[in-house]
Amino acid sequence: MNQNQGKKKIMVYDTTLRDGAQGEGVHFSTQDKLSYVKRIEEMGSLYVEAGWPGANPRDEEFFQQYRESKTSLTRVAAFGSTCKVSESPEQSDILLKLVGSKAKTITIFGKSWDLHVRDVLRATLEENLRLIRESVAYLIAQGREAFFDAEHFFDGFKENPSYALKCISAALEGGAKTIILCDTNGGSLPSDIEKGVRTVLQEFAPQELGIHVHNDRGLAVANSLMAVEAGATQVQGTWNGFGERCGNANLSTLVPLLQLKGDYDVVSEAALLKITAFSRFVAELSNAPFDEKQPFVGRSAFAHKAGMHVDAILKNQRTFEHIDPADVGNERRILISDQAGKANILERLCRFEPTLRKDDPRVEQAMHEIKELEHQGFQFEAAEGSLDLLLLRILGKLNSSAFEVLDYHVWSDPLRGELDSVAVVKVKVGEETVQIASEGNGPVNALDTALRQALAKFFPVLKESELVNYKVRVLDGAHGTEAVVRVIMDTRLGEEVWGTIGVSKNILKASAQALLDAINCTIWRGDSNPG
Amino acid sequence: MNQNQGKKKIMVYDTTLRDGAQGEGVHFSTQDKLSYVKRIEEMGSLYVEAGWPGANPRDEEFFQQYRESKTSLTRVAAFGSTCKVSESPEQSDILLKLVGSKAKTITIFGKSWDLHVRDVLRATLEENLRLIRESVAYLIAQGREAFFDAEHFFDGFKENPSYALKCISAALEGGAKTIILCDTNGGSLPSDIEKGVRTVLQEFAPQELGIHVHNDRGLAVANSLMAVEAGATQVQGTWNGFGERCGNANLSTLVPLLQLKGDYDVVSEAALLKITAFSRFVAELSNAPFDEKQPFVGRSAFAHKAGMHVDAILKNQRTFEHIDPADVGNERRILISDQAGKANILERLCRFEPTLRKDDPRVEQAMHEIKELEHQGFQFEAAEGSLDLLLLRILGKLNSSAFEVLDYHVWSDPLRGELDSVAVVKVKVGEETVQIASEGNGPVNALDTALRQALAKFFPVLKESELVNYKVRVLDGAHGTEAVVRVIMDTRLGEEVWGTIGVSKNILKASAQALLDAINCTIWRGDSNPG
Repeated sequence: MNQNQGKKKIMVYDTTLRDGAQGEGVHFSTQDKLSYVKRIEEMGSLYVEAGWPGANPRDEEFFQQYRESKTSLTRVAAFGSTCKVSESPEQSDILLKLVGSKAKTITIFGKSWDLHVRDVLRATLEENLRLIRESVAYLIAQGREAFFDAEHFFDGFKENPSYALKCISAALEGGAKTIILCDTNGGSLPSDIEKGVRTVLQEFAPQELGIHVHNDRGLAVANSLMAVEAGATQVQGTWNGFGERCGNANLSTLVPLLQLKGDYDVVSEAALLKITAFSRFVAELSNAPFDEKQPFVGRSAFAHKAGMHVDAILKNQRTFEHIDPADVGNERRILISDQAGKANILERLCRFEPTLRKDDPRVEQAMHEIKELEHQGFQFEAAEGSLDLLLLRILGKLNSSAFEVLDYHVWSDPLRGELDSVAVVKVKVGEETVQIASEGNGPVNALDTALRQALAKFFPVLKESELVNYKVRVLDGAHGTEAVVRVIMDTRLGEEVWGTIGVSKNILKASAQALLDAINCTIWRGDSNPG
Repeated sequence: MNQNQGKKKIMVYDTTLRDGAQGEGVHFSTQDKLSYVKRIEEMGSLYVEAGWPGANPRDEEFFQQYRESKTSLTRVAAFGSTCKVSESPEQSDILLKLVGSKAKTITIFGKSWDLHVRDVLRATLEENLRLIRESVAYLIAQGREAFFDAEHFFDGFKENPSYALKCISAALEGGAKTIILCDTNGGSLPSDIEKGVRTVLQEFAPQELGIHVHNDRGLAVANSLMAVEAGATQVQGTWNGFGERCGNANLSTLVPLLQLKGDYDVVSEAALLKITAFSRFVAELSNAPFDEKQPFVGRSAFAHKAGMHVDAILKNQRTFEHIDPADVGNERRILISDQAGKANILERLCRFEPTLRKDDPRVEQAMHEIKELEHQGFQFEAAEGSLDLLLLRILGKLNSSAFEVLDYHVWSDPLRGELDSVAVVKVKVGEETVQIASEGNGPVNALDTALRQALAKFFPVLKESELVNYKVRVLDGAHGTEAVVRVIMDTRLGEEVWGTIGVSKNILKASAQALLDAINCTIWRGDSNPG
């Protein structure tokens, strides 16, 4: 049975590829956009605003390639603006390019704040109404679904309400069925949003009313929620809250928030289960950092650090979790740090020795060693692989490392081009000693390659694992390149991904530590889950 | 005159050092906490919850050292809990340690959700009321100001309202003047908050009512705002929103939001001007990443990327800024990317050539080169130093680099301990060629040292500048150590800090690129602002 039966349908309009791409540090190539649109389908029926054909070459290219990909263009919207002052729609390069994109849905924004008409368009208020009315009418005459974004509606509604409403009415006269009220500057409060939405619904009762807000006061999610409560039926936003300045309403938060509230049909249960993975996919695609503190989808969203919280959660998960992490495809994590109580460490140790009791001296020892290493700059929250190795040693399940590194050197000649570095490593496995030299692209890669070559014949599982991420953090910024650096690497083996850590003043040494933990952990995981 | 005259006073209670420290990746040493408390005074009259004496050695140490520092302990609060089940306050190790901290203000939390009493305390509902009443009474008998945190109040109020209210009344019977309603799990909606706050005010009218919420649904700021609108007079939160799971209400957002709303007296105008710098200071102290997208205080908060926005903002700042960035000590930034219109690039070029016109061919050329480099993985948003060098070359103001690097090699032997790396560089300045070898802690430091040694005698300004940050990002995570890496370094010269960038498969080469830009930029800035 469908859990959404009888609930009010809320349409999600996803502008990650357009407004999201206007966020600092967010970049999508044409290929990125194509893979995005392919994968978005798993999130269910959304509108995707994919770009502004004409504004930059990439967006034009996207719509062309998307057409050639022969996928149905339904629900992939092109974004643009009304025609320009004193120009007719037929002459408008902007509108021609929008129509040329062949998108069935075209969203255009128009000014609804008189300040913008005067200071930016430098046109009469009447002329702006013409631009809106005629541009919308033109798109509809071309057989397109036309959405109208009332840019800066809430600012305009505050300063000149009657004019802001005239702009809406111009779009409706033009034939728009869907009107989107925008808090473009993100300065509005929930009470402003409620007033604006209710007024527009009373005055015009458009077929569909959307809300598009920015997060400049940290209220984007609350303002979108308020708009829906006041009667809006379309929410616009971006995954991970990417977007201009502080970003747009965060769909990764808003979608589960509305869906789990119970009275709205936003996405399917199946889509909700994929929302954590999808949010991360979007961040990786865009190359922007993923905010791990994000509600619902962040790695920290259900991560418990304080000892008392962990103790409680193990008694009843509701005590410190507002929902079941599994409902959004996320998972609970018990963090190990100097804040950790015995409960945190015991929980982790019990993965390897289920019968371990709280008063076992090794629990105390583990706590002590972890706090000591964290004091030196280690941080195990993001390096569960290194943590596991530490705990396994304490439990006596990994008495000696599977191999020993007797020596290593690295030589780098960066002006030489490809394979500009050489690493020499000397390892001992059992009684056998192997010395290998290997080239690499950069010293860390050379070292990685040399170590894997030297060890692969003894531990074939190393051929299956790969390094998927490499992070460096300067621990004390004040010392520049002489500072202690922390390297964290993520290794993938099959479906599993885990982090390992190294800390040193020498970035190579820190990398080697993390690399050796990655290799040891791969070997151990390979042995413990054979096949 | 005081701009806060006649406004309603809102007390800020800052729990960054306690609840904030429970956030993943957030760490404060005792020394960190001492410098924090020293510096917090510039933010005006706040309560600072500095830790839980007894819960971990660091917090006990803090209160002791803070006492010895002879600074008045006023407004530095100690946090803890009620005494334990079937124990009297006089026997309670928790309460004794709290009193022992000598803090004048002591905040204790108690259960107000019956689920917690049953499943975590495993006590009778009556016993829990006794713990609350007697613990508060004991602290007051010891002459302390006792604040009561009603943990999970909103969840409790939803499931068993009468019991949740009994817990509040127990604290008041014990003599508490200040009651704080907590949304500990962060699952409440603004409407839940409003209902709870109004009910408690009607039933008990406590002298002061506080609100403490978490951000698990992205509503922490909105919920705090709602509580204040409903009558709460104390807001609890953390700078940068640090805290357990998704974090607490973000004071960096909430303080300016409430202050700029106009009807509340939260902090002084002078404090508001320091809020951006202070938020960054807190992040650096805690070693946690600073969210640059944060409202008001983030680097991106007033950063404009889309060409049309920049064009508008140069006509009237109100068009795309909800407040003047200067009011919160932040600044506008015009970003340069492939989204940039000519307006962005022109604005930047005009810093060096104010008379430059939009149709100058060099504007087009700059746009072209930037888009090409961004395509290769460069990102100038965070590397304004490298961007300026690029633009200066295009403008013909930096025809040839001040020096030439003929060759460099690096050798590293990480097992050797300190100074385990050697760099050999050969540079040409004018007609003079200098070859220098230098040791360093790690290859990047060795290269840095060698280059500076070789060049300092020609460019003394290099002795004044320092590298303050060093970041590495793997551009294509899927290729591990063989991937292209982007290095961004921040250099400080006097008060100015700027970034430079390098991109290569070899981390040393990428570092060298960024380093050489840093050096060139230092030399150029040294020349352009002599003295």
